[in-house]
Amino acid sequence: MDRDKILLTPGPLTTTLRTKLAMLRDWGSWDSEFNAITASIRQSLLQIIHGSNDYTVVPLQGSGTFSVEAAVATVVPANGHILVLDNGAYCKRAAKLSTMMGKKCTVKTFDEAQAVDPQVLEACLQADPSITHVIMIHCETGAGVLNPLQAVSDVCKNKGVGLIVDAMSSFGALEIDTRQVQFDALIAASGKCLEGVPGMGFVFIRKAILASCEGNSMSLAMDLYDQYQYMEKTTQWRFTPPTHVVVALHQAIAQFEEEGGQAARLARYTANYQALIDGMAALGFQPFLDPQVQAPIIVTFHAPKDAKYDFKQFYLAAKDRGFILYPGKLTQIETFRVGCIGAIGPNEMKQAVLAVKQTLTDLKIQTVA
Amino acid sequence: MDRDKILLTPGPLTTTLRTKLAMLRDWGSWDSEFNAITASIRQSLLQIIHGSNDYTVVPLQGSGTFSVEAAVATVVPANGHILVLDNGAYCKRAAKLSTMMGKKCTVKTFDEAQAVDPQVLEACLQADPSITHVIMIHCETGAGVLNPLQAVSDVCKNKGVGLIVDAMSSFGALEIDTRQVQFDALIAASGKCLEGVPGMGFVFIRKAILASCEGNSMSLAMDLYDQYQYMEKTTQWRFTPPTHVVVALHQAIAQFEEEGGQAARLARYTANYQALIDGMAALGFQPFLDPQVQAPIIVTFHAPKDAKYDFKQFYLAAKDRGFILYPGKLTQIETFRVGCIGAIGPNEMKQAVLAVKQTLTDLKIQTVA
Repeated sequence: MDRDKILLTPGPLTTTLRTKLAMLRDWGSWDSEFNAITASIRQSLLQIIHGSNDYTVVPLQGSGTFSVEAAVATVVPANGHILVLDNGAYCKRAAKLSTMMGKKCTVKTFDEAQAVDPQVLEACLQADPSITHVIMIHCETGAGVLNPLQAVSDVCKNKGVGLIVDAMSSFGALEIDTRQVQFDALIAASGKCLEGVPGMGFVFIRKAILASCEGNSMSLAMDLYDQYQYMEKTTQWRFTPPTHVVVALHQAIAQFEEEGGQAARLARYTANYQALIDGMAALGFQPFLDPQVQAPIIVTFHAPKDAKYDFKQFYLAAKDRGFILYPGKLTQIETFRVGCIGAIGPNEMKQAVLAVKQTLTDLKIQTVA
Repeated sequence: MDRDKILLTPGPLTTTLRTKLAMLRDWGSWDSEFNAITASIRQSLLQIIHGSNDYTVVPLQGSGTFSVEAAVATVVPANGHILVLDNGAYCKRAAKLSTMMGKKCTVKTFDEAQAVDPQVLEACLQADPSITHVIMIHCETGAGVLNPLQAVSDVCKNKGVGLIVDAMSSFGALEIDTRQVQFDALIAASGKCLEGVPGMGFVFIRKAILASCEGNSMSLAMDLYDQYQYMEKTTQWRFTPPTHVVVALHQAIAQFEEEGGQAARLARYTANYQALIDGMAALGFQPFLDPQVQAPIIVTFHAPKDAKYDFKQFYLAAKDRGFILYPGKLTQIETFRVGCIGAIGPNEMKQAVLAVKQTLTDLKIQTVA
């Protein structure tokens, strides 16, 4: 079978042919036509968060993690103190990169099956007034938990503490409206819910704090203040941009807008999610998370209890049937993950469930739950 | 006119349709088929430098500068002392990123129209035994100078000092043979003479120094030791790779090998260079550099002396005729640059010269030299 596999992964994900076709052209990174594309992307991104007045957005080459590191390096001064609200693997990564670059970093651990608790955050800030910045992951892709952005933003705003939001897996699908929430920096990437290809991230920065960011970064590559200043002055990227990734994102955003923007995308992903969990439930699969804290982005399922189950075999058999699953990221429990995002609809999710069903039969897995 | 412009720029550059067509598919970054492509790229890269025994190569997301910064961050320890052999803009950038990350960095300045001098390097190392690492740019794209890799490598090896080579614009076109030259790290990128699309770099690291690199980097994203360890252990990239850029590079390398490898590529670029300077000379254009130090990669020309000359107008008129030129990067003298690299041959260079000739007529520029 030669058809492309459908990626049920949280990015890279399945993109439309139209998005990929945008890459069939080479662009001069110095050319005004290319720079107009960058400007258009930045404008569209700001509109998604209703942030054109109070925020700017700075694109950055590399994976999403590069942009997370750049946001921390740029926004948090040398004498800052970061509190990471940790309920998963990506929180731990944020804490690690903060500590490595020499920033003081405290980690408040929550259950990875639960959302972080804004009241606990408030108590932490009360107990330690030296904390200057809070890092939260909007949708923790480790398990798939949706964290309470509004409530955490409210606490930070009231306490006068900066908030850095990793919105990698949520941006474009879940509502982020700067008329309601405030943050110092919010990070996402091209190859997630905007359905572009991977290769660049972008960081929204609140304009009110921009001036205070100058000179914070000890890394030239990660210095978003420098990247911002250069881009504003020249319209160009500071260093060679991933031109084909940029034009693919531009094309992906056009389709995002045509579809109806964030609300329409959330509706489609929610339908995908519903088709997935309904179908998997009929096969006996249990989601790891309570539906109350589950984002419709990526679902962690308990692995079948059957002794015959082996993720690698399960993965290969599902792949043979056209679907790429994703391994679990929990350390204590055997799980696997299925993404609900990408240029796919409920039909693909139903076909994926069928592929899983046939895979169970092929592998003679009888006890699912 | 709807045909794609030809990029006479030092990367991004014109790539083949075959290279771009590789991007019409989405890949799971966890999938073994994708990881086999990464492994194949790494193997091919090592073969180009005849380094399979003594070197490894670590790919990194982002622009080439990200890989330069990562090489310095990973290879040079906290108490190291870097000497930058500076004959152009990219040397200054290497010094800046080294200084920003807190490494001690000394700059030895040479004329930007001249190659760096290995005898001066030897004297510097003699005068200051605290220097642990030397940074050199193989082909300084600022003016287009070819620096003496063999002689500088010999001096560093004799003195027991580490050498970091930025070979961004030379790798794949100029000979770099580790049976002759030794370095601690050598950096290049996807969108240069291998004729891939931009979005990733790669760093060759000498295996003998790998163990000493652990824990040097204060940046998680820039930590090539961590990237290396993870890739060796899992076959995967540590963070989301730019999947489409990676498969395009894989396809570009296949064409590189089919063409006959580095020697064939150098021959084509040399023919491009010759067609360019012959044609431009007939129009009265003077190259900035002495042919002795000129690499056949990018040529800096003195701008026309005519008062009617304005680079922006000149650029736009040449672009209308299908060719994207590149601005000069010298601070003292008015110049422009023309790249000889990319998926083009002498025919395209002759057509470019014709476009420049017609541009001169259009803009009524009479005095060229």
